[in-house]
Amino acid sequence: MRIALDGMGGDRAPAVVVEGALKALKEGPSDLEIVLVGRPEELKAELARLGAAEGALRIHPASQAAGMQDAPSHVVRQMRDSSIRICFDLHKQGEVQAVVSAGNSGATMAVGMVVMGRLPEVDRPALASALPGLKGPTVVIDVGANVDCSPLMLLQFGYMGAAYAEKVLGIKRPAVGLLSIGEEDVKGNHVVKLAHEYLKNSELNFVGNVEGRDLFSGRASVVVCDGFVGNVCLKVSEGLAEAMMTLLKDNVFASLRGKVGAFMLKPALKSLAERLDYSSYGGAPLLGINGVGLICHGASSPRAIASALAAAAECVRGGLVSHLEEGLAQFRGRLLGESAAAE
Amino acid sequence: MRIALDGMGGDRAPAVVVEGALKALKEGPSDLEIVLVGRPEELKAELARLGAAEGALRIHPASQAAGMQDAPSHVVRQMRDSSIRICFDLHKQGEVQAVVSAGNSGATMAVGMVVMGRLPEVDRPALASALPGLKGPTVVIDVGANVDCSPLMLLQFGYMGAAYAEKVLGIKRPAVGLLSIGEEDVKGNHVVKLAHEYLKNSELNFVGNVEGRDLFSGRASVVVCDGFVGNVCLKVSEGLAEAMMTLLKDNVFASLRGKVGAFMLKPALKSLAERLDYSSYGGAPLLGINGVGLICHGASSPRAIASALAAAAECVRGGLVSHLEEGLAQFRGRLLGESAAAE
Repeated sequence: MRIALDGMGGDRAPAVVVEGALKALKEGPSDLEIVLVGRPEELKAELARLGAAEGALRIHPASQAAGMQDAPSHVVRQMRDSSIRICFDLHKQGEVQAVVSAGNSGATMAVGMVVMGRLPEVDRPALASALPGLKGPTVVIDVGANVDCSPLMLLQFGYMGAAYAEKVLGIKRPAVGLLSIGEEDVKGNHVVKLAHEYLKNSELNFVGNVEGRDLFSGRASVVVCDGFVGNVCLKVSEGLAEAMMTLLKDNVFASLRGKVGAFMLKPALKSLAERLDYSSYGGAPLLGINGVGLICHGASSPRAIASALAAAAECVRGGLVSHLEEGLAQFRGRLLGESAAAE
Repeated sequence: MRIALDGMGGDRAPAVVVEGALKALKEGPSDLEIVLVGRPEELKAELARLGAAEGALRIHPASQAAGMQDAPSHVVRQMRDSSIRICFDLHKQGEVQAVVSAGNSGATMAVGMVVMGRLPEVDRPALASALPGLKGPTVVIDVGANVDCSPLMLLQFGYMGAAYAEKVLGIKRPAVGLLSIGEEDVKGNHVVKLAHEYLKNSELNFVGNVEGRDLFSGRASVVVCDGFVGNVCLKVSEGLAEAMMTLLKDNVFASLRGKVGAFMLKPALKSLAERLDYSSYGGAPLLGINGVGLICHGASSPRAIASALAAAAECVRGGLVSHLEEGLAQFRGRLLGESAAAE
C-alpha cells in the first residue's frame, strides 16, 4: 500500500503534513508506505526537527508548490513540477495507489482530472464528504470541487454519491436527497428545480428535496448539492460545532457546581468531542477520476492528515474506482440519454 | 402597539399561532394588541379550546389561507382574501404597525412587497436573520426571500444588512462579509466573484469573503449571501444544534457517573440550550419593504410566535423603516451609479 502525500500542500505545510505522515506510519495500517512529495531540503529539515529515523519515508522531489491563490488552470498548465502534479504523475505511473493533499483543492481536482482522466459517464469529478449523522454517515456531494453546476452535473453527483455510499460505505440502495430550501418539489433555485426533475426520473432511490437539517437527521444517505453550497454547509457545521463546545465549556466552568459536574461528565464529553471532531474523518475522496485522490482541509491537523492516509488506504483496499465504475455503468444508457436530451 | 398576526400561516396553524398569540399577550410588551387574521370560526374554536377570555384579542376575518405549495404570484394575484394579504392590507391602512406570519415565506414576501411597496434603492426585499454568535449576533441576509440573485442584489443586501445591524441592533459601523468558500478574493461562484468587486468598491465596512464558520466566529456582523445558501445555512445550524443536544443527552445518560454529572451540570446545560434555541430569537425581518414584516419558521412553536411578536414590536419602537431608509440614503448616489453601470 503506497500513497503519495503532497508535502507542500496545506496552510501549515510542510510541518503539519510531515507530522501527520509520521503519525500515520506509527498508528496507521501496517503495510502503509508513504512517498512524501516536495522540496527535499524543506522536507528533510522537518523530518530532522521531528527526530524521525532516516529512511522512515521516501522523499520524492518536486521543485514547485501550488499556493491557495493559484488558479487551477495555472497549476495545470504552468506548474508541471509542483508537488501536487508529481503526486498524480506517480499515481498515473503506478508508483503509488493513491494521492492525499491538503493543498489548494481546486488545483488538486484539476490536476487529478487532467493526469488521471475521468471515468466514463462523468463530466466533472466531485468531492464527497461523509458527515457524522445521528443514524450513520451522510455523504454530501459536492463539497467544493465545482462551484457553478448544471442540473445534469447534479444528477451525476447523485449517481457517484450513491455508488460510493453503496460500494464503499456499504449502505444498501442508499436514499438520495437533493438539498433545497423546502421539501416541496417546486422549492429551490433555478438549477435545483431542473435537477429535481432529472433525479425524479432516474433509477436512483430518490427521496426528493431535503433541507439543511437533514444533513444530520439520516433522512438521506446521500445529499446532492453544488460545490459552493456543500462547502458552505461543511464549514457552517464545523464553525457551529466549535462554537457549541466553547459555549459548553464556558457554561460548565461558570460555577463550582458546574466544575464538579464537568469532572463527573468528563468521559462523556470526551467521547462527544471525538464524535464531532472532523479531523478523525479524514479527507474527502475526489469521485469520478480514474484513480484515488483524497483532499484534506487546508487547516488540517497532523491527526487529520493521518486519518486521510488511512482513509485513502481504505479506498484502495475497497476497490473504490472499480466499484464506482460498476455503479455508474448500471446507469450508462440512462446517463447518455439524459445528456443527449439536454443538448 | 398593534400587530397583525397571520392566524392561518404555519405548519400547525391555527392552533400553534393562537397559542403563541396568547403567550405574547401574557408575557410580552404590556402595550401589545394583536389582530388575529383568518377564518373566524377556526380561530374562535382555538381560543375556546385554550380557555382564552372573550375579547382577549381582536379577530379580523379572511376567508382564504395560502398553503406552503402555493406559488407567491398565485397568492398575490388570486388570493385577495388570504390571511396574509389581509394582514398587509391592515398594515397599509395604518390599522396595525407590523405583520407577523409563520406561513409560506415566498408568498409573505411577495404580498408584503406588492402591498407595502419597496424603499427607494431596493430592487428586492430580503430576509435578515440574527444568529447567536460567540461575540454577539451575526446578521445573515438573505435567508430565503430570493433564491436566484444578481451581484447587484447582493450589494443591496449588504447595505440593508449594515443599516439594520447599525440602526436596530446598535452595532457601530458593522463589518460586512461576503459568504464564500475561501477568504481569497478569487474564491467563489460566478455571482459571488462579481458581488465581491461591488462590495469592495462600496462605502461599507467590507471585510472581504468570509466562510461558513464565520457565521458564529464574529468576524463579520453582517454576512451577505443569496437566499438559497442563507436558508440552507440556517437549517444546517438548526439540524446540527439539535443533533448535538441529542448526542450530548445520549452520552450523558450512558453511565451512572454521567447521570450524576448531568444532575450537577443541569443549570449550565439549560442555559446553553436556551442560548441555542432558535425559537427564542423570533422571526426574521423582511428588509426593504415600506413597513414592518416578520417571517417565522413554518414549524414555529408558540414560544417562537410570541418571540416574533415581541421582536416586531421592537422593530416598530426602534423605527426600523425610517432607520433603514436613512441608512440606505447615505449610499443613494452610489447605488444608482452601480445600477446604471450594471445596465
